[in-house]
Amino acid sequence: MKRLTTLLTAFLLCTITFAQQALWGNIPVVSPEIHDNNTVTFRLQAPKAVKVQVTGDFLPKQKIKTANGEFEILGIAELTEGKTGVWEYTTPEPLQPELYSYSFIVDGLRMNDPANIYLIRDVATLTNVFIIGGDRADLYKVNSIPHGTVSRTWYNSPTLGMERRMTVYTPAGYETSGKRYPVLYLLHGMGGDEEAWISLGRTAQILDNLIAQGKAKPMIVVMPNGNASQEAAPGETSRGLLPPTTQLPKTMEGSYEQAFPDIVKFVDKNYRTIKSKSGRAIAGLSMGGFHSMHISKQYPDMFNYVGLFSAAIMPNKDVSSPIYEDIEGKLKVQFAKNPALYWIAIGKTDFLYKANVDYRKLLDENGYKYTYYETDEGHIWKNWRIYLTEFVPMLFK
Amino acid sequence: MKRLTTLLTAFLLCTITFAQQALWGNIPVVSPEIHDNNTVTFRLQAPKAVKVQVTGDFLPKQKIKTANGEFEILGIAELTEGKTGVWEYTTPEPLQPELYSYSFIVDGLRMNDPANIYLIRDVATLTNVFIIGGDRADLYKVNSIPHGTVSRTWYNSPTLGMERRMTVYTPAGYETSGKRYPVLYLLHGMGGDEEAWISLGRTAQILDNLIAQGKAKPMIVVMPNGNASQEAAPGETSRGLLPPTTQLPKTMEGSYEQAFPDIVKFVDKNYRTIKSKSGRAIAGLSMGGFHSMHISKQYPDMFNYVGLFSAAIMPNKDVSSPIYEDIEGKLKVQFAKNPALYWIAIGKTDFLYKANVDYRKLLDENGYKYTYYETDEGHIWKNWRIYLTEFVPMLFK
Repeated sequence: MKRLTTLLTAFLLCTITFAQQALWGNIPVVSPEIHDNNTVTFRLQAPKAVKVQVTGDFLPKQKIKTANGEFEILGIAELTEGKTGVWEYTTPEPLQPELYSYSFIVDGLRMNDPANIYLIRDVATLTNVFIIGGDRADLYKVNSIPHGTVSRTWYNSPTLGMERRMTVYTPAGYETSGKRYPVLYLLHGMGGDEEAWISLGRTAQILDNLIAQGKAKPMIVVMPNGNASQEAAPGETSRGLLPPTTQLPKTMEGSYEQAFPDIVKFVDKNYRTIKSKSGRAIAGLSMGGFHSMHISKQYPDMFNYVGLFSAAIMPNKDVSSPIYEDIEGKLKVQFAKNPALYWIAIGKTDFLYKANVDYRKLLDENGYKYTYYETDEGHIWKNWRIYLTEFVPMLFK
Repeated sequence: MKRLTTLLTAFLLCTITFAQQALWGNIPVVSPEIHDNNTVTFRLQAPKAVKVQVTGDFLPKQKIKTANGEFEILGIAELTEGKTGVWEYTTPEPLQPELYSYSFIVDGLRMNDPANIYLIRDVATLTNVFIIGGDRADLYKVNSIPHGTVSRTWYNSPTLGMERRMTVYTPAGYETSGKRYPVLYLLHGMGGDEEAWISLGRTAQILDNLIAQGKAKPMIVVMPNGNASQEAAPGETSRGLLPPTTQLPKTMEGSYEQAFPDIVKFVDKNYRTIKSKSGRAIAGLSMGGFHSMHISKQYPDMFNYVGLFSAAIMPNKDVSSPIYEDIEGKLKVQFAKNPALYWIAIGKTDFLYKANVDYRKLLDENGYKYTYYETDEGHIWKNWRIYLTEFVPMLFK
């Protein structure tokens, strides 16, 4: 194996040279280390640092008071420096099963964990992630089961006048089964794009697992881009590698809802779908819940299953669009056609809780049937992953 | 727009809370800023830092002497602190068109640029990237042209006894054209996986651009995982979110080459391909060049086009596999069948340069026809992107 070893050594030298690890003595540390009892140790080699902290959603929240009121923010824990310049923090208690995000703060500067290559982007921020397995979180893991295909593809939207990118999950066996499949249209929130559900939402893992366990029907999941002014996620358009635009125009003013049939048409043409209401579901989080509510009532013969996850149901009198006219009349038509499922989910501390109470009151007053699901906590991805795992098994049965 | 503004504010507060930007005063800086004349400014807000540096392949290389000899490593430049704790460095000269990688070093600690969400993983290291457009580098950009579809899919390898992941590019129009397409099999190097060519190699952008310009035939590009012991890239298997294993077994000992027909069989079954030698090309970088050389000679009726990019052609007498037996006899058969293209490319300073000189000498001595392409520099992605842009236009013509 001498020659092979030579190649490997040469290759590793290239890697080291590139990564410059040899220069700043960045010898490997393991971080995060998940112990058998589900406590977790975070480590960072930073011999010159004065203060190293870790922040993330695995820590208890803390309250801060500002001029604008009291807010809950992520907790922060201090790492302790060991002999070799390696800082360390171990959670005092085991962590509950979940996908967690975290970052280090080194002398006030937020940075990712150089020992952890797994990062997820949420709007314009990258954070490291890790998974504590068990219970529902096992659905977020890649398991040794058949896997679906995840595609990034482009569709033409004549209504919006542009080519637009979408992410599509097709279940294991799709390519060769010859069968037709039902479709779940899954919509992201404000600041998100066609990458949000597949990365933060763990959609492919959740679907693979639920389908393999026989808890969900094999289905196609279409994750379009819900920002009507945007062709695709940051970095995927001719804008180039510029920072994401966080305040996009045309997000909740009717354009996207109006143009939605372009997406359904494309999907029905390019995939083996069940091309009828009984084979279609639509769901979304926050702004995507708002979109799902309006799209499903605007086209009452299109979707048999509707999911509103922490939906931003906020009627806005100042926005003028045919989509937002005569909401009550359109809901009457939609519910007269008896959708198989109208599912509303929200967290107790969500800033949209009251808006959802009001919306449910409207549905109740009219005797419209829906299912309600309430969780702890607020407007966070933890809840949206939970809602997806609850919603998907109820579809197309 | 009052209600909408309320939602936006609430949403932004959530984001801020999550990202903790409010806490450490991480007000936005623009970095990297590419000026009109192609000089670039890097910025980092780090008021408590004593020393901030930037390193990357845009800087002139520097030489270091170690006990193992003299090595070239990436250059380093110092940032200067401004009044508001924002450190800054501007390149003294405009940069040439290219995709560049860089990192900051803050008081000896390597970190990514928090203002730049674009990171690419090379083996086990994440670095920020930016593109200076113009010339060949325009092929690496997303342009306003028709885009192909990029899929991550799984195939069964009976020979290796596992389900394995691959990345597949299908050209714009594939879904609806009804036509059959030729296939380029594109193989990664040691430490890489099925994500390497699509991320570092900019394969989708290069193919989209060359096809739109009429310089390349529309083709399918299959990017499999070349580590025979591995099902998929880090994070995509039941191993979970553990650090990548950089020293994998079964990389250059014949298993992968032996099992390669499983991949071709899967692709021919699941995609509208031209199912013959005239419609197949194989190319790879470094270890993938070694694989391409052995696979193409082992199965002389499979590929009409062969590309060896900085190929790790290192006959190893200690490895025993039927694949590596009678190399000269197999080459004789392969070249007797007149492959349409046998293309060898390498950089002048590549540590594999001599091995490629020796291999070309062997081909020359036997009168086997090949095309040779030489570039400056060595075993780097810049060269492999160049080779791809040169190789693809010659295929299937």
